[in-house]
Amino acid sequence: MTIPISQQYAIGIDIGGTNTKFGLVNHRGDISYHGAILTHKHEKIDDFIEDLYQALEPAINDSGGLEYIRGIGIGAPNGNIYKGTIEYAPNLRWKGIIPLAELIGNRFNLTARLTNDANAAAVGEMTYGSAKGMKDFIMITLGTGVGSGIVANGQLIYGHDGFAGELGHTIIIPDGRLHPGTGHKGSLEAYASATGVARTALEFLEGRPKEDSLMRNYAKEEIDSRVVYDCAMQGDAMALEVYEFTGKVLGLAFANFVMFSSPEAIILFGGMAKAGDLILKPTREHMEKNLLPIFQNKVKIIFSELKEADAAILGASALVWESRLES
Amino acid sequence: MTIPISQQYAIGIDIGGTNTKFGLVNHRGDISYHGAILTHKHEKIDDFIEDLYQALEPAINDSGGLEYIRGIGIGAPNGNIYKGTIEYAPNLRWKGIIPLAELIGNRFNLTARLTNDANAAAVGEMTYGSAKGMKDFIMITLGTGVGSGIVANGQLIYGHDGFAGELGHTIIIPDGRLHPGTGHKGSLEAYASATGVARTALEFLEGRPKEDSLMRNYAKEEIDSRVVYDCAMQGDAMALEVYEFTGKVLGLAFANFVMFSSPEAIILFGGMAKAGDLILKPTREHMEKNLLPIFQNKVKIIFSELKEADAAILGASALVWESRLES
Repeated sequence: MTIPISQQYAIGIDIGGTNTKFGLVNHRGDISYHGAILTHKHEKIDDFIEDLYQALEPAINDSGGLEYIRGIGIGAPNGNIYKGTIEYAPNLRWKGIIPLAELIGNRFNLTARLTNDANAAAVGEMTYGSAKGMKDFIMITLGTGVGSGIVANGQLIYGHDGFAGELGHTIIIPDGRLHPGTGHKGSLEAYASATGVARTALEFLEGRPKEDSLMRNYAKEEIDSRVVYDCAMQGDAMALEVYEFTGKVLGLAFANFVMFSSPEAIILFGGMAKAGDLILKPTREHMEKNLLPIFQNKVKIIFSELKEADAAILGASALVWESRLES
Repeated sequence: MTIPISQQYAIGIDIGGTNTKFGLVNHRGDISYHGAILTHKHEKIDDFIEDLYQALEPAINDSGGLEYIRGIGIGAPNGNIYKGTIEYAPNLRWKGIIPLAELIGNRFNLTARLTNDANAAAVGEMTYGSAKGMKDFIMITLGTGVGSGIVANGQLIYGHDGFAGELGHTIIIPDGRLHPGTGHKGSLEAYASATGVARTALEFLEGRPKEDSLMRNYAKEEIDSRVVYDCAMQGDAMALEVYEFTGKVLGLAFANFVMFSSPEAIILFGGMAKAGDLILKPTREHMEKNLLPIFQNKVKIIFSELKEADAAILGASALVWESRLES
């Protein structure tokens, strides 16, 4: 019996450092089931997969059973689509190279595909979100870290080894701020992540002790990107300057990205994107300033239209529908 | 009468600021005719095209006439493959937007395709040179300027507007050296072009007046990348340091490019590539240093295998054979 595609589901799984979220998604991108388990409580990968299976089994049965599930799509940090592995992911407890797609596929008795989380988000955006119909765009996730997924000629750029699109680690300010996770100096992530924004705020507060700021109402440990945002929204000059500075670095980086792949749009996604115009205006200004004239006033910087919780699940599930990825 | 492809020729034209070179190329990449005219002596584009036609007409007739010519491929600075135009090319006398493919196609009564010169070189390298069989590579031309052609998933990256791959203009050292042509500071081209190398040498000579160097045997106006090369080959410490410095900037830029598209190789082409290990060693060292571990010791930096005069003609002619570009 062949199940028509309109009655099939894909399982989309988004593995984050803290939570793993998942859903059953039909080919139109409707999520009919939502679930989550904690990622970090599982020291062993097998225990994690077993928990995932137990959490999804009822939903699979409710949807008619295994034959109604077309496959599993997984987005995971440091995920490699060619090999189905996660490799040396700094934010996960499972070290080294984990053949995750194979392990999950075997446990569920389904075909499983895996890519990195930012690439999954880009696929989600292209299939169901702001990038629908675009053939050339870059997805930038501004969260705890800075991730990216690059689409050119209508295809995700994976590179020869599956690791393309680590734009958060490109060096924007040589000999600049140290990234404690990588040991490199001046990478985009050291400035434009939520962590980077908090760091900039702390540097401003400490470096300019005589300057007043609402951010001084918080203890040093409390300063995070949320605090900076709240203070900026109340008109705090120093907090606004944190965004101006962040946008300067981000805009410079974006100019370089544009001169690489000349995308129609750069799509922002993740917690930091919630800052809206606070981050958008300086970013756009500095991007334009650093572009050659042939690129100026052409590239849109827009926000993702997908709910943050859904985008990664949708993107992961889209891997299942992408025919060229069917084995 | 349909001429079999084995008896057909493509005309490949490489338009440079000074010379325009061209040839008749069969589908195996053999160039059966070479010719050149001066580009810069033609103030009017129509005169240029007429001269080009007069120069090529005998060769077309010798090869059996128009019906043996499959089409014309053109590589030109600031060339746009989607529109067949050259747009605001700083090194050409024809200003604004020139519909060059159409003009040439009309005069020759053949289909003409045009792309930028660095993209043409990348296509040539992929079809006939060091990148044969590669699906992901970046071609960097180190000449008077720094050009680039990017191939990912086996396709040239053109971007949404046809202008992708201006890597020479990415900002590597923010607030760094002024590029007199663009007005931007710290772009790769300001450092890693032949002009940039000469500029570095002059800065070293002027900034360190007490330090001896063979380069001091030359007048300031005589210092060019050739002089730096000759002195470095004689073991001159300061000239060697010019290459070390250039390689530092180039290596940093390459690391960023690798973290973007994760190519199998970066292929160097153009006059500066003749410096061989002098430029290769520091570039490789600094590239590796700035890469995330997952990218390290994977990416080849290699030299083009094509004769410099031929590569651009071959690449331009390859546009004609690329079936997806047939209209």
